[in-house]
Amino acid sequence: MINVESEAELTRVELMAKNLQKQARISIRVNPNVDPKTHPYISTGLHENKFGVDIDTAKRMYISAKKSEYLDPIGIHCHIGSQLTQLAPIKESVNIVANLVRNIKAALDVELKFFDVGGGLGIVYDNETLINTYEYAQTILDALHGLDITIVCEPGRYLVGNSGVFVTKVLYEKTNGEKRFVVVDGAMNDLLRPTLYDAYHKIEVLGKSENSSTCNVVGPVCESGDFFAKDIELPLTEHNDLMAIYSSGAYGFTMASNYNTRGKVAEIAVEDGKDRLIRKRETFEDLIALEEQYLK
Amino acid sequence: MINVESEAELTRVELMAKNLQKQARISIRVNPNVDPKTHPYISTGLHENKFGVDIDTAKRMYISAKKSEYLDPIGIHCHIGSQLTQLAPIKESVNIVANLVRNIKAALDVELKFFDVGGGLGIVYDNETLINTYEYAQTILDALHGLDITIVCEPGRYLVGNSGVFVTKVLYEKTNGEKRFVVVDGAMNDLLRPTLYDAYHKIEVLGKSENSSTCNVVGPVCESGDFFAKDIELPLTEHNDLMAIYSSGAYGFTMASNYNTRGKVAEIAVEDGKDRLIRKRETFEDLIALEEQYLK
Repeated sequence: MINVESEAELTRVELMAKNLQKQARISIRVNPNVDPKTHPYISTGLHENKFGVDIDTAKRMYISAKKSEYLDPIGIHCHIGSQLTQLAPIKESVNIVANLVRNIKAALDVELKFFDVGGGLGIVYDNETLINTYEYAQTILDALHGLDITIVCEPGRYLVGNSGVFVTKVLYEKTNGEKRFVVVDGAMNDLLRPTLYDAYHKIEVLGKSENSSTCNVVGPVCESGDFFAKDIELPLTEHNDLMAIYSSGAYGFTMASNYNTRGKVAEIAVEDGKDRLIRKRETFEDLIALEEQYLK
Repeated sequence: MINVESEAELTRVELMAKNLQKQARISIRVNPNVDPKTHPYISTGLHENKFGVDIDTAKRMYISAKKSEYLDPIGIHCHIGSQLTQLAPIKESVNIVANLVRNIKAALDVELKFFDVGGGLGIVYDNETLINTYEYAQTILDALHGLDITIVCEPGRYLVGNSGVFVTKVLYEKTNGEKRFVVVDGAMNDLLRPTLYDAYHKIEVLGKSENSSTCNVVGPVCESGDFFAKDIELPLTEHNDLMAIYSSGAYGFTMASNYNTRGKVAEIAVEDGKDRLIRKRETFEDLIALEEQYLK
């Protein structure tokens, strides 16, 4: 199904379906106007956010879709934000949407088959208290009581966030004034979360534990925003020490750029104790491959 | 010359030069501890920033380099930040570094040949008052009075920032509650500056001027941080209207990522009124080219 999140988009999908002489299966993303209590950049369920449509607009869209011979309204979707650690906002939004599902059935005779509860289940980066998944499931089931509807969920970060570790090498130790910096060969282009969200990632120097002191872990990119951690305790390091930056499986490589003409890192999968390369390191030749044939 | 910015790096360059049985021409990046009055992420000349070494450390490094048969100290560098709009901090830092050049000559008999004053000259994004370039040059010349030294400068943003325009298409107009959103097909992965620095970019809808009202310009990426402008006045748009996002020549494409599996945009050069493709649009096949051969 195509998940539609504005009236204009619904009109567009209908037009394209008509051109193809097909019927498009659609769901509608509802914005329940609930504050998910997370970082503003990954909060998505308030009317001040761009996502989805309010309840009244959703009703109009289901009416319009039911009338159209090119649209088949079969689903509903809501997603209030990412890295959620509180159940209450989820409960509130799921109940709002479940009531809408009942209203649509009663008033419009549209029986939705799929309820996409979105994702957003938080993970442990630091010392977060997580949502209990049994309670999460029960909350959704309670809200949907009496409805014959298939639940869809998309907990991407929950599944892969803590499966990924970003491994980087120490280049240098340096001190500016009183401040200790550990300069590593990874940078903000490889893992943007600390810079973009001021996010915390647990960091360890592999095989080292002595002479710890407070430091910033920084990369070699040309911005003071190029950091992985500020004011954390780390042991004294040496050139080529390996450092593990944990919880990098979600929003890590996917947000990587080539800033400072840096190729993207290699990706290694570890399965049953064995490692294998699943993505080659990007070379300078890869970076310019799309341009050189057009330069004279 | 190799620009060195820590004692550990100098040791490393010396070791590598020795291994190669070469003499490495080096310069040292000095951190003058001057506040450049710009965004914290692009402020680089304070001791709390990771960049460069303080004056005393620089002296030790020049002594060490002079003694080494594998190092040839010929330059000095300082760069206090980017998008600078005030001359006073530049004057202060250039004078600090010029005095260091004189001290090094008098005390160590090391005569530096290159003075890299860095970059950082601001450009007009909104209504900034710029540094007068004649006064900028004169300030540097005044500071270097009596020295026979070649000036190097690197005003990248100043040269290309306003030469680039990011052109995107309107997908939809939508309203959430009272809030108008113009959804375009470009996104934060294409131009990160608004999201990362809360930076202002002037925006115009090409060929439209009527029915203006306040809106946010947002992309289709899955974050509320995916925006180009908040609360700006724009005319009412339609699907496929072209929108110009100005001042995108610096820190635009260079910071682009493939977030949300979005290929990087095509780049078009316009020269003498003629346009030509200089970089092809990245396809899905390009995105997975480095991984597929390793997947079973």
